[in-house]
Amino acid sequence: MAPAALEAQSQQKEETVAHNSVLSSSSVNDTTHRSKVSVIGSGNWGSVASKLIASNTFRLNSFHDEVRMWVYEETLQSGEKLTDAINRTNENVKYLPGIKLGNNVVADPDLENTVRDANMLVFVTPHQFMEGICKRLVGKIRADAEAISLVKGMEVKMEGPCMISSLISQILGISCSVLMGANIANEIAVEKFSEATVGYRQNRDVAERWVQLFYTPYFIVTAVQDVEGVELCGTLKNVVALAAGFVDGLEMGNNTKAAIMRLGLREMKAFSKLLFPSVKDSTFFESCGVADLITTCLGGRNRKVAEAYAKNGGRRSFDELEAEMLQGQKLQGVSTAREVYEVLSHRGWLELFPLFATVHEISSGLLPPSAIVEYSEKQVRSF
Amino acid sequence: MAPAALEAQSQQKEETVAHNSVLSSSSVNDTTHRSKVSVIGSGNWGSVASKLIASNTFRLNSFHDEVRMWVYEETLQSGEKLTDAINRTNENVKYLPGIKLGNNVVADPDLENTVRDANMLVFVTPHQFMEGICKRLVGKIRADAEAISLVKGMEVKMEGPCMISSLISQILGISCSVLMGANIANEIAVEKFSEATVGYRQNRDVAERWVQLFYTPYFIVTAVQDVEGVELCGTLKNVVALAAGFVDGLEMGNNTKAAIMRLGLREMKAFSKLLFPSVKDSTFFESCGVADLITTCLGGRNRKVAEAYAKNGGRRSFDELEAEMLQGQKLQGVSTAREVYEVLSHRGWLELFPLFATVHEISSGLLPPSAIVEYSEKQVRSF
Repeated sequence: MAPAALEAQSQQKEETVAHNSVLSSSSVNDTTHRSKVSVIGSGNWGSVASKLIASNTFRLNSFHDEVRMWVYEETLQSGEKLTDAINRTNENVKYLPGIKLGNNVVADPDLENTVRDANMLVFVTPHQFMEGICKRLVGKIRADAEAISLVKGMEVKMEGPCMISSLISQILGISCSVLMGANIANEIAVEKFSEATVGYRQNRDVAERWVQLFYTPYFIVTAVQDVEGVELCGTLKNVVALAAGFVDGLEMGNNTKAAIMRLGLREMKAFSKLLFPSVKDSTFFESCGVADLITTCLGGRNRKVAEAYAKNGGRRSFDELEAEMLQGQKLQGVSTAREVYEVLSHRGWLELFPLFATVHEISSGLLPPSAIVEYSEKQVRSF
Repeated sequence: MAPAALEAQSQQKEETVAHNSVLSSSSVNDTTHRSKVSVIGSGNWGSVASKLIASNTFRLNSFHDEVRMWVYEETLQSGEKLTDAINRTNENVKYLPGIKLGNNVVADPDLENTVRDANMLVFVTPHQFMEGICKRLVGKIRADAEAISLVKGMEVKMEGPCMISSLISQILGISCSVLMGANIANEIAVEKFSEATVGYRQNRDVAERWVQLFYTPYFIVTAVQDVEGVELCGTLKNVVALAAGFVDGLEMGNNTKAAIMRLGLREMKAFSKLLFPSVKDSTFFESCGVADLITTCLGGRNRKVAEAYAKNGGRRSFDELEAEMLQGQKLQGVSTAREVYEVLSHRGWLELFPLFATVHEISSGLLPPSAIVEYSEKQVRSF
């Protein structure tokens, strides 16, 4: 869309937020005070997040319309650059084909250029790339920037686990919230009803801006003051999804699957609270907790590949099945299970978390998939 | 099995409980002090419960072997009485065909005779029959009897809702615990791994006897001191299962289903705590809470019929679909939704519980199935 057309439409922006009672309504006509949003990442979920955000920045006066989205440049089979294809068609033709992102989304292959003018940075890349990206951004972002992480996973260091929100805060020296929830990207892309949870550290006003940026009538966002709880839910649920997939592959039925999911939720809660005593029980009742666990264990890719792994009796590796089944998408559960196992080993907690431990032992080939239920007596004794 | 054979095997009973650390091990060789168990009810779940119980009374010294099971007498198509068929084949040929109940289960068509010698009464009938059954038992039970209810549902009286455990206690003047959980009966019948929760009022020793009676390596039972919380979980989850079924019938996807299940869990918790302030949040993390909700929303009959109802756009009634799809089993969700609606209306709480209210309005034909998601904005405003 041409700048003039954008400007004309901005005149019609809503001045209040219809569906979000937590926000004070304020008319922001001075464009210099409008928030400017950049999205770092453009995979399946990054593209859907950009679409959600762009619908709100376009509608609301408190944001600049344009959403700049960093794209790790690729050359498509046609010879066209991915960024050029996105900007020409307004679709991420590779990772979210068929969905218009909004004309105010601009794909940019230059990481530094993407973030230069932004005071709201949305991180949504595979977690293994986050440390490198943050290091490249040191000294390149605005002094008043705030971040939110949609990234699932953690970095395990010698001194212990480091959450992605902490990594961002430590390397860039800015505050970082998180957004997690029952959010299978393709369903949100077609605007089916769902919910999400923003976890924030201290500043309620910052949390409300993030809620405002993501909230739509079909995407209900709630904020809770518990960054670590929300982030660990989003991370650990992928380990439980592997367990649920094993149960599916072994055709053990719904009672068993529900029992394994419940035991998994219990270990998620216990693990999170051992690592961060500030984590709240109530967070596990939010969308990031029980709902994300349910949707991931019903339909997610970790569950799907784990089911195939169990059906094959563990004879085909996760790497092989992932390459065959996921068209280039990466499975986070297997690496998270390994990272969790490292934390458990290092701290002497293996016996306290038999489900988490067993999932890693199965996915790494040490135990057969049927071990997922055989550990149950250990489980009962340990709590 | 002949009495002599039973006696011989009793000599070999285990003197301690291998899998249940909460129990003190005591040798009870004096048969006069052994607990005697009767099961009132013999449907699908009642038959499975009798099988679980009979395996333990047979194995453990603290119980009489025989489990007497009251059967509402029917004449089978063959002309044989149902009780005769059960006692001849050791199977409930009508409600749980193909599963041996254990030779120490005795089907009895005489209600008073079933309970006469028992000090542990297990109630497991459709909830609408409970009041009549209890009234027939007044003065017919042992003075030292204890009860446990596996019945889902509640009676709505002018003065408010009455839980089944309270009904039993009030009419019979005995204490009553409850057992609820992620327990689709046919899966437990074939000994697939699952869990359940005993809710007890005050006496931990009583709770431990109930745990001992039901616990097997594939059926893990945990006790919590929260009768009302556990019982309301088992009752209210059927209302949420109808909502989940509507979402399935409308093909809205897993995010939406997970969101509706989470919102349902939230209303279950809020409703229970408004009715009984003693209800604990932690109960909803037990098998009776989140796990039962999951299994019921994945595979239960309320979900299944609600899915068909939504697929038909509400044009075929629940009564009609129930008769066609359930072979004589009864759907509890629809009547529970109506009863909950009556409580909400009577107390002025309808606006606080938009999901519960909407489920009843859909199942009674006042709203179309698609209303299940359209209420979402009300939901966000009300909490």
